[in-house]
This record gives sequence, structure tokens and C-alpha cells, in this order.
Amino acid sequence: MVVKVDINSDIGESFGVYKIGMDDDVIEQISSANIACGFHAGDPNVMADTVRKCVVKGVGIGAHPGYPDLLGFGRRNMDISPLEVKNYVIYQIGALQAFAKVFGTKLQHVKVHGALYNMAAVDEKLALAIAESIALVDQNLIFVGMANTAMEFAAQKVGLRFACEVFADRNINPDGTLVLRKYPNAIIHDQELACRRVLQMVKEGVCEAIDGSLIKVKVDTICVHGDNPQAVQFAKKIKITLEENGVKVMPLANIL
Amino acid sequence: MVVKVDINSDIGESFGVYKIGMDDDVIEQISSANIACGFHAGDPNVMADTVRKCVVKGVGIGAHPGYPDLLGFGRRNMDISPLEVKNYVIYQIGALQAFAKVFGTKLQHVKVHGALYNMAAVDEKLALAIAESIALVDQNLIFVGMANTAMEFAAQKVGLRFACEVFADRNINPDGTLVLRKYPNAIIHDQELACRRVLQMVKEGVCEAIDGSLIKVKVDTICVHGDNPQAVQFAKKIKITLEENGVKVMPLANIL
Amino acid sequence: MVVKVDINSDIGESFGVYKIGMDDDVIEQISSANIACGFHAGDPNVMADTVRKCVVKGVGIGAHPGYPDLLGFGRRNMDISPLEVKNYVIYQIGALQAFAKVFGTKLQHVKVHGALYNMAAVDEKLALAIAESIALVDQNLIFVGMANTAMEFAAQKVGLRFACEVFADRNINPDGTLVLRKYPNAIIHDQELACRRVLQMVKEGVCEAIDGSLIKVKVDTICVHGDNPQAVQFAKKIKITLEENGVKVMPLANIL
Amino acid sequence: MVVKVDINSDIGESFGVYKIGMDDDVIEQISSANIACGFHAGDPNVMADTVRKCVVKGVGIGAHPGYPDLLGFGRRNMDISPLEVKNYVIYQIGALQAFAKVFGTKLQHVKVHGALYNMAAVDEKLALAIAESIALVDQNLIFVGMANTAMEFAAQKVGLRFACEVFADRNINPDGTLVLRKYPNAIIHDQELACRRVLQMVKEGVCEAIDGSLIKVKVDTICVHGDNPQAVQFAKKIKITLEENGVKVMPLANIL
Repeated sequence: MVVKVDINSDIGESFGVYKIGMDDDVIEQISSANIACGFHAGDPNVMADTVRKCVVKGVGIGAHPGYPDLLGFGRRNMDISPLEVKNYVIYQIGALQAFAKVFGTKLQHVKVHGALYNMAAVDEKLALAIAESIALVDQNLIFVGMANTAMEFAAQKVGLRFACEVFADRNINPDGTLVLRKYPNAIIHDQELACRRVLQMVKEGVCEAIDGSLIKVKVDTICVHGDNPQAVQFAKKIKITLEENGVKVMPLANIL
Repeated sequence: MVVKVDINSDIGESFGVYKIGMDDDVIEQISSANIACGFHAGDPNVMADTVRKCVVKGVGIGAHPGYPDLLGFGRRNMDISPLEVKNYVIYQIGALQAFAKVFGTKLQHVKVHGALYNMAAVDEKLALAIAESIALVDQNLIFVGMANTAMEFAAQKVGLRFACEVFADRNINPDGTLVLRKYPNAIIHDQELACRRVLQMVKEGVCEAIDGSLIKVKVDTICVHGDNPQAVQFAKKIKITLEENGVKVMPLANIL
Repeated sequence: MVVKVDINSDIGESFGVYKIGMDDDVIEQISSANIACGFHAGDPNVMADTVRKCVVKGVGIGAHPGYPDLLGFGRRNMDISPLEVKNYVIYQIGALQAFAKVFGTKLQHVKVHGALYNMAAVDEKLALAIAESIALVDQNLIFVGMANTAMEFAAQKVGLRFACEVFADRNINPDGTLVLRKYPNAIIHDQELACRRVLQMVKEGVCEAIDGSLIKVKVDTICVHGDNPQAVQFAKKIKITLEENGVKVMPLANIL
Repeated sequence: MVVKVDINSDIGESFGVYKIGMDDDVIEQISSANIACGFHAGDPNVMADTVRKCVVKGVGIGAHPGYPDLLGFGRRNMDISPLEVKNYVIYQIGALQAFAKVFGTKLQHVKVHGALYNMAAVDEKLALAIAESIALVDQNLIFVGMANTAMEFAAQKVGLRFACEVFADRNINPDGTLVLRKYPNAIIHDQELACRRVLQMVKEGVCEAIDGSLIKVKVDTICVHGDNPQAVQFAKKIKITLEENGVKVMPLANIL
């Protein structure tokens, strides 16, 4: 049996004259892109450029909606009611959908950004509002998020396909949650080790937690970064490791 | 033969706690709504509410994209390249499209707002950029604007249906252009006179210009306002005048 | 001995074409104004107009900084670090200070807005950041807030004068805190009763809590609203009640 | 007699997570800084950092107000009335003034940004509105702009000191205006040549126009850029050339 997995990254986060992220480079290493939609990052010109590039490279396109907080890059929690978040997400998906249409393709998935992602992982009402907004806009969209979170349950509730994502460079607690960034062992700095872990997660469905125990993980997509040359190189290394070990890297829509 | 015409108004221009326009009242008098898309006015919650109301009332839904200038309500000209305007319009149409989808309907038309409307009437490249953005998102959308302007020519060029709109309360020069607001006779304050003029335009296809000459006009839709009780009453009077004289008021999609 | 008290209201909250609040009316009933500074509400034109009107009427001018969230009117909590809030408050005070200078006056006070006010009441670090920002910009500014909150302690810590404000229409718990809006008895709807309570607070320094007990309150300024005709009438009734009972209503700077 | 000149650069143009400009490097080469004030670029945190750095390095601090267009970086002309621009400039100067106060200094000058600069050079009413706003906030501020433009005349009219700035890398027409960027000879790419021209302008008060004629120029300050390593190196070369030839580089306040 062929093992398949997706690699995703957040791109299209530039704004006006402000450039951020090595999109042209990271796009070579991924099979799905989460594209900012103008609330926490991105603008219509950046969205057009980014969708076009993804289409050219055969990268699956997803909306990456965030809080309306450009100044904070969507990383600051905002106490917004689920109903309002629902409308914010509908708006952002729709905006990106139009660019997908213009460039002859369709949206594949939705992954929410930053503080909204973190909140939606633990807040059932918020997660449900997001899932509903996705389903209302297009029932075929894939909801991308962490396994065993409120996001996954919300996707099930509204009948959306859910793609479980893992982070290549993060250590995991015995209960499957991420080790918080405030702890010194949150990040795995050894790229070789991280690649081996990713391969194990994808091929064997298990991962070593920080207490040495092996825990089960479900991996549909691996999140990588494109902020700097090191991050891009890491992404490349992950992709090569997977491919050299017989794993097929492809967009989510071809997997789920 | 039954004479048919549409009545349109700009609605959904509130923003957050800021309320503007008597939407609930004017919506009773119109057959098509131009809904702000969050750039010059409107926000996702307002858009959701406004689309829902239009669906309930059977009012045709159109996107009303504007310049990214909430502070100036899209009424200040901005020197933005046609390519950028194209992306801004795609973005805004897409955002509204998603709400149309959520409420079980489709967009009927696009009418650009304020300074963008005025510029697009005279700037061929800008008008073409707008027409292209509309056609790229959905070739079935109707482009609403003034007859004999760059907008109409652009619509023809890209193969979009174009709806000619007239303004019930404005005097017209012998060449068919509006008398500019800086002149004392720009606005027709006599509602009875204005209603008779509208009826003549719709039924006979002619209008008396300020020099007394009768000029030909094409009327697919009549623009009315909902800013205050007087405006709403005026809109009501126009609708009644038309209906009492055998004109059927209906959404653009049923006319073109 | 003459009893003196200030009456304050949040004004200058319009934005562009969006009008909110009956500023011209409520300004007649107050001695100090909290003027929005462009983050959660207000814009430079509104600020100029509002400062000018206050100067004409002899109303004390204060900055009313809020979270950068026009869409939410500053009423939604945002998880922003104290250091960033400090800079946001410095920025907003400075912007209003320039208009004060232009119209020949000086800022009297600072009162933070909405969610920032609520957070600063309970979050010591946030309150201290705000107090520091005020003191750094002008050590003579008065910090307005609720008594016995983190705001009052922060003012003491940085050596700022603190003005205790009470709300005319709110019931109080036995511990001096406001009854939360989610409870049915949060708001006092009987204007006569509210006026008697305000008078007692000002003249006797006590207030009846919801359990019937009399608790001590310190009142430097009474917060009133100007959102609608009823609110303005209520403000007027409070002012008249105070004046008829020998209380002098005057700006904070004349009291502290 | 000692020849003195100022070197200025636009800095503090980052926004949130978006970094732009090599501020730490260019700040070493300049004597005055034009700091963005949050409308076209910059934010309160960036403003605080930038003012602090300038104070440490003894660099004169100036406000750099622009149009409210972060998406266009203030480079797109906006049709805003002079009265509104006046209030926008007051607001922005005030915001930066507060940070100057916090870091123990005062603003030295104001230079408007981008499209506002270009418009103010030729639009008398706009230039006057800007000059008035500066004078109203602080009569001691220096207005920086191009010589012989509406800005210089406006400064004279309101009694402000005016600092004439030249651009090190731009060719000049025989009438003293800049060769427009659309012409191939707009930019001087030879850094040695540009340095010699700057030196001649500063020491002899003349400059060779594109037709070979020597024209008179008045130089109070030289504008340099910090966008990339080449620009910074160019700025450094200019400063060294001036100093090696006996010119003292110092803030405007020490010159005018």
C-alpha cells in the first residue's frame, strides 16, 4: 500500500510593500498552501499572485482566515463571539474563492490562523462556528487542524472532512498535545531527528512523546514554515526524507 | 407589451456599532440591492444580515465594491492602478458571493461605489479592469452603471450584460450626463416632478434635459436612496408611480 | 463647605460619515469629556471638532484611548502585552494633545475605553502600563477610573492624581463592584431613584448596595451617556438634581 | 566659515511583524530622521523604538505624516480636502510628539511622505494646510521639503522655518525640478558622481542640470535611503565625502 501525506505551509502573508516569507522557495516543497485572506495578513494583490503561483505548481489552495488584526498578525487572542467569527470566516473564504475561480481552480481546504487556531482547538463553540462557516460556503472543503481538538469534533459534527496536521519541529506531551513554547524542550532543533520523527509518524502512525512513550498520531498533513532560509531547507529535508522512504507527497484532496 | 424596470439602492453600509441607512425600510421599495463589501463600508456581520434580508424579500443581490477607504466612505478618489483595482474588486465580489451561497442564492450584479464609480465612468482602463474582474469571477453577473460611459463600453468588450441606471433626483445635460452637484440645478427637489420624469424615462425612453430638449435614455434600473425618511418616502413614491402606471418593478435578472 | 463633582461622558466617537452619539446635546450637561482617539472610534476630523466644542463650552478634555479595534468599537478584549498597550496609549494621548494645543488648551485627564477599561480594572500589569504611559506623557494628567481597582493602585504607584468615577445607572454589590450586566438588576431604570442615589453618593459618600447595606463610595466624577435622547435627558436630570441640592458641577481639574 | 548640512532619511516604517528598512544601519549615517506616524507606515511600538534609537544616537527627530493608506504605503494620491489633511497631519505630529516627550526630547521637524509630499509640492492649498497644521502644533518645528515649491511658500506664509532638501541620486532639470522617474536619466547610478554632485551643491550652492548648465540650489538637508545594503553604503559614502571635505553633518536644528 502506498503511504501518502500532504505538506502544508502558511504563505501569501505579505501586505502592500511589506514582504514576509520566502513564498517562492517554500512553495516548491509543499503540496498545499494556506493563503492569508486580508484580515491578519495578505491583501488582494498578494492573494492573486499567491493563488496563481500555487496553480502553476499544482499546490492545493486553502483559505487561512484569521482575526481582523493586521497590527498583531492575528496572533493575539480577541474575544469575538462565535457568530461574528463565523461571518469573518465566511467573508475570508469567499474572498479567496474568487481568486481561485479567476485562476481556474477551486479551494481545497481551510485552516484558521494563529490565535484563532489556538482558540478553536479548545473552544467548542468557536470551533463549531468555524466548521459551520466552512460547510455553508462549500461542503467539499477540508477542515485542517490538530487531531483530537474541538476543531476535529466540530468537523465531524457538521460533516466536513478533517485533515489532521502535525508540526515537524515540535515535541509532544504523552497526551498528544504540543509542548508549550514556554518550555525549553518545545522545539526540536535537530533537523535530522525531526525528519526521522516525521517519517515515523507518517509511516507507523506513532510518535515518541517527551517521556519516551510511543503515542499514536494521525497524520494527513505536515506543517512547515517558510520564514527564513533555514526553515525552507528544513521543509525540503522533510520532503526528501519522505520521498526517499517511499512516501508520496501530494495535496490533501488526493489523500482524504 | 409589459414594461419592466428595476429599482436599486446602496444598502448594507453600516460598520460595527455604526449604523447608517434605513435598510429595513428602503429594502421594501427596491428590487435590487447593492451591498457594501467591507472596503468603503460594510463588514461581515452587516453583509450577512443584509443578504439574509434581501433573500427574504426577494431582492436581487449585487456586490458594491469600493476603494479601501472606510474613513472617506469610498468617496475620495484614489490613484490606484487598474490591476490593483481589479484585484480589489475580485476580492470584494468573492466575499459577498460567499454570503449569497450561505443564504442559498447567487449574486445578480455588481455596481461599483462612489469615487470608483465616478472614475470608472470616464477612465477606460479602470472600467475595463472592473469589467474583467466581474467577468472572471462570474460571467453571468450583470454590470450596473451609467449608459454611454466607459463602464458600458467595458462591459461590451468583455461580454457582460450591462444594466443602465438612472438617478431619479438628478437633472441631465443635453448630452445625457448628470448636471454636476456643484450647480444649483443638479438636484430635483420636487418629488412629483421627479416621479413623472422617471415614468417618462421608463415608458417612453426619453428625458427632458435642462435646456428643454428631449433626449433618449435607456433605463434598466433606477437608483434610489435610503439615507433618511424623506429618501425612503421618495423611493416609495417612485415605485408606486411606476406600478400605478403599469410598469412592473422586478430584479435586473428578470429584465435583462 | 462646597461639595464639588465632575460629570463626564464619552464623546467624539463618530468616524468618517458614521455619526454616533448626541455630542452637541450631552456636552451641555457635562464638565469633562472623554474623547475617542482614533483606535476604537473617532478620527482626526471628529477629534478636531470635538475638542473645539469642548473648549467653547469650558468642558475639560480627556483622552479616551482604546484597543485598535474599530470593528468591535474597542469593546472586545484583546490579548495585548502591557508594553504594547503602553505604546498604544502614548500614541493616542499624543494625538489628542496636539488638537488640544491647536485649540489653545491642555488635556486634563485620561480614561481608557471599553474592554481596555474593564481589563485595566483587574489586571495590575496592564493598569500599571497605562498609568506609566500617562505619567510619561504628562505627569499632570488625571487618571480616571473606578475606585479600588488596579487602575487606582497603579495611579498611586506612578504618582498620578486619580479620579474615582461612578455610574449613575448601575447597581452595586456589597463589595463596591458593579452588578454585572448579565444580571437583571444590573441597571437602574428609575431615573428619579438613580438621581437620588447619585446625590447621596456625592453628598454623603455612601451608596445602598443590592443587599440594602450602605457602603462607602468616593465620587470625583459621574459617568453619563449621550447615545440617545433618553440618556441625554437622564444626564440633564442628574446635573439639575446635583445643582439644586447645592453641589457644584465642574471639571476634574478644579476638584482634585 | 564652517559649512554645515543635515542628512535625513525616512525610517520607522515597519508595521507589526512586517519589517522594512535597515534602520539600525542608516541611523548611523544620518543627523535627522523622518519617522512614520502610523497612517501610511509605522505603529506605536515601532515609533517608540525608533524615537529611542534616535535619541541614543543624537539624531534629530521629525514627524513623517502620510495619507491614511497602509495598503499603498502612502504612495497613492488621495483626493482629500486640505482641511482633512490638516487634521490628519496634526494627529500624526501629536502622536509622535508624545513619544518624543516620553524619551526626553522634542520634535525637530516635519516632512510629509510620498504622495502627500508630491501633491504638497504643487498644490498651494494643500501645502498651506500642512504648514498651518505644523505651526499650530508647534511654531518651532522646521518644515522640510523641496525648495521653490508650494511647501516653501506655505512655510513662509505661516512663519515656519523651512529646510530645503535635495536628493543625492536624482538628476535635475534646468528649472531645478527633478527629472521624473519615468525618464531613463532620472536616477544617478554612479555613486562617486552623486557624491561629487552633493559636495558641490553643499559647498558651492550649484548643481549641474541635465543640459549641462549650472543652476543654483539651496541645501539644508540631503535625503538618503535605507532600504537595502547598497542604499546604506551610498548614504555612508555621502557622509564621508562631506566630512572629508570639511562639511559638518549635523541635525537641522543646529543649522537653521
